[in-house]
Amino acid sequence: MTSSFLSVRKREGRPSPDAVASLNVELAARFGNRFSASEAIRQQHGHTLTWLENQPPDSVVFAETREDAVDLVKICARHDAPIIPFGTGSSLEGHVNAPHGGVSLDLSRMNHILAVNAEDLDCVVEPGVTRTQLNAWLHDSGLFFPIDPGADASLGGMASTRASGTNAVRYGTMKDLVLSLGVVTADGTFLRTGTRAKKSAAGYDLTHLFVGAEGTLGVVVEVTLKLSGLPEAVSAATCSVPDVRSACNTTIETIQSGLPIARIELLDTLSVRAFNAYSHLSLPEAPMLIVEFHGTDSGVVEQARRFGDIVTGNGGGNFIWATRPEERTKLWKARHDGFYAQMALRRGARPFATDTCVPISRLADCVEETLADIAATGLVAPIVGHVGDGNFHVSPLVDMKNPKEIEAAEAFASRLAHRAIAMGGTCTGEHGVGQKKIAYMEDEHGAAAVDLMRRVKAAFDPQNLFNPGKIFAV
Amino acid sequence: MTSSFLSVRKREGRPSPDAVASLNVELAARFGNRFSASEAIRQQHGHTLTWLENQPPDSVVFAETREDAVDLVKICARHDAPIIPFGTGSSLEGHVNAPHGGVSLDLSRMNHILAVNAEDLDCVVEPGVTRTQLNAWLHDSGLFFPIDPGADASLGGMASTRASGTNAVRYGTMKDLVLSLGVVTADGTFLRTGTRAKKSAAGYDLTHLFVGAEGTLGVVVEVTLKLSGLPEAVSAATCSVPDVRSACNTTIETIQSGLPIARIELLDTLSVRAFNAYSHLSLPEAPMLIVEFHGTDSGVVEQARRFGDIVTGNGGGNFIWATRPEERTKLWKARHDGFYAQMALRRGARPFATDTCVPISRLADCVEETLADIAATGLVAPIVGHVGDGNFHVSPLVDMKNPKEIEAAEAFASRLAHRAIAMGGTCTGEHGVGQKKIAYMEDEHGAAAVDLMRRVKAAFDPQNLFNPGKIFAV
Repeated sequence: MTSSFLSVRKREGRPSPDAVASLNVELAARFGNRFSASEAIRQQHGHTLTWLENQPPDSVVFAETREDAVDLVKICARHDAPIIPFGTGSSLEGHVNAPHGGVSLDLSRMNHILAVNAEDLDCVVEPGVTRTQLNAWLHDSGLFFPIDPGADASLGGMASTRASGTNAVRYGTMKDLVLSLGVVTADGTFLRTGTRAKKSAAGYDLTHLFVGAEGTLGVVVEVTLKLSGLPEAVSAATCSVPDVRSACNTTIETIQSGLPIARIELLDTLSVRAFNAYSHLSLPEAPMLIVEFHGTDSGVVEQARRFGDIVTGNGGGNFIWATRPEERTKLWKARHDGFYAQMALRRGARPFATDTCVPISRLADCVEETLADIAATGLVAPIVGHVGDGNFHVSPLVDMKNPKEIEAAEAFASRLAHRAIAMGGTCTGEHGVGQKKIAYMEDEHGAAAVDLMRRVKAAFDPQNLFNPGKIFAV
Repeated sequence: MTSSFLSVRKREGRPSPDAVASLNVELAARFGNRFSASEAIRQQHGHTLTWLENQPPDSVVFAETREDAVDLVKICARHDAPIIPFGTGSSLEGHVNAPHGGVSLDLSRMNHILAVNAEDLDCVVEPGVTRTQLNAWLHDSGLFFPIDPGADASLGGMASTRASGTNAVRYGTMKDLVLSLGVVTADGTFLRTGTRAKKSAAGYDLTHLFVGAEGTLGVVVEVTLKLSGLPEAVSAATCSVPDVRSACNTTIETIQSGLPIARIELLDTLSVRAFNAYSHLSLPEAPMLIVEFHGTDSGVVEQARRFGDIVTGNGGGNFIWATRPEERTKLWKARHDGFYAQMALRRGARPFATDTCVPISRLADCVEETLADIAATGLVAPIVGHVGDGNFHVSPLVDMKNPKEIEAAEAFASRLAHRAIAMGGTCTGEHGVGQKKIAYMEDEHGAAAVDLMRRVKAAFDPQNLFNPGKIFAV
């Protein structure tokens, strides 16, 4: 499909100092001390957790209301300045970087829980509410929100990157749990993408268009989420497996048997070592699965028994049960700190966070080929995976002062992405495209599908105000 | 948001006889006896099941391959002729009507099951495969596809209208179960909207954009679907409830308690009478719930016990269990024939099929107000509902020779749609917008959201080739 009549304005370089100064005058007048152009604040808002270069915005505005976001969009549109929505800055793909300058729109102060509709199992929150804040709020309601990326991310950011985490195998990802969004579009209009009805066939699915759009189509200023009832009973365990292939086969058999496992996480031996050191654990140093079962008292026992049989059948065992809540909390805290635990394996190194996802039938092949690739390349690269979804992460730890090592890690990450795509998978299961996955978009989707995506961008944001340089190289 | 730079070509009236004749020559040359302009075939392809007027296409092409669809799109684009994708013609909102003429693209012969990936719990099918055909094929695999609109619809059509049915409360709707689509776009390009990976964060969600687009953005020529494992045990029952409010309250408590009910259907007294007459049943003539439980042997017993307690607590009872498979088949066959059973209540009348869905906390209010409205209006209007989703249907049976009755039914349908929207719901839970729900789109979504939808349409199909006059009044 040719794009001749529809195109996104191409941005090159950063705005001139004069343009920035002129914009800053207007922003300071409108936002007062909620506007900042200080070096420290700017650096913090362009900070990346991985090997990606920091690219600070020209200024930062701290929004407190929807009207703040509306006004900022209108002002930026007039000045032709990019707007980069910012939640907690825990993205791993450079989403909050400002390669073309502009204003970081910090939404962390929009952190009010607007409604909890217990009968409908849903809630409405501002975008700066974090997942742990929401669950603390829900504590006595019998409800919880299951999606848990490693970081305590904001729910607006999680919607924007289609986040998931350890519970997705049972409860779904943000794609499944966002009912509706409130967004500010490129001309400063606020609109809702859907209703609170559980089903709708009323026109195009705008909700799913903004979920995962990484802030490139508009600013998310309100999120309506499905909630789940807290399970009556929870039981968690770790078990060892002889190798990653048996871990993958155990996972496939578990999913295929219809066992409604809530979490099933793979750690390779190197990751177990990292977790032990960082979180003061004493897990046996072998490939390991961490699992959790949710259900009724009897249901959880039945699930655990059936899972135990599958593990034994695949040569695994050595179950350690976390029956008390505080034991489970310690275990999952360690899992969520995994990114930092891995980083601590090699002080001073930066992680090349990767995020492939394949059909589960290809998971063992993909992980085994990747382990062989790591061994051949000589990288220090631990693996953890949400294996119930076919999703795993490899984080080569790279000395950024060594160009040869950087080159080797980049080549490895590229091989891994292409390996997953060749197996019918994706270059990113949950981190998003950001800056460095742009290179794989055409390989994964084909030029015609990427062209349709560009058409959506051009139709919604022809001026290319929203987060330019992400998803597309424009 | 202003649409000045982006607009969809407006179509008025039908093509001239000369234009049709010229197109027909080319279609006959390319498609031979798979092309037809006969009156009977045209009438059949513009047939509607409800009160909507039949608007036949100018001709029909029976596609057998993806290449047929590609070539048809290219030919129609050159002749500026509309393309109306056709599956089984079981839509209830006039989706297959041709108000602006053009070619009905009959996809029913593209009915091959291309792959079943049992390990991945997914399959790839051509769009003409019907839901019962797929389930017959899967019969010995231990897998099934759960979505069951009343009709034996085609899976391409079900994807295009975001269909659901009785199992959606547990298994989700087409929105949840379509993993990826193969589509032909307006310039005749074939592309896939996603991969078979269970999760992806790689760019805009094109899959969900085409799911529910009602053929207005492209032609669906391939569907990749998630499958489920057949439950070990199934148990179904009917029970009576004192009134629809207690039925709704029973449903709310069931959902809230986390009971993983597979089906929970409401029939009002009039519907029960219709079912008894049409399907030779002897159900007690009172408001009724039909329920089904899926799980392990012990799990199903536990679910049934807990559900029984909830029913009793709401003043209901009189359980009749369908324990044998043939009893269950008879029961659900009757439910799926409900549309025809209702029609048979008043011979010669046409049903005004409605399809509202509200947050479940408002379900009792919405149904009660609607019953009062029916009583005040004096319509013959049975109610059935997928109440676990907050979704219910009212089908006023109207004598189409009586203009006053038509007017009364139209006014009732409008009040019902606005009632649902005012309660935070939608004018269509699963039937789609088609022709007659266009009137409610701005009320439900707001002008700004509908403008975004128009922008998508303009970006993908500026010539307005695909199913013009559906979703939007263009």
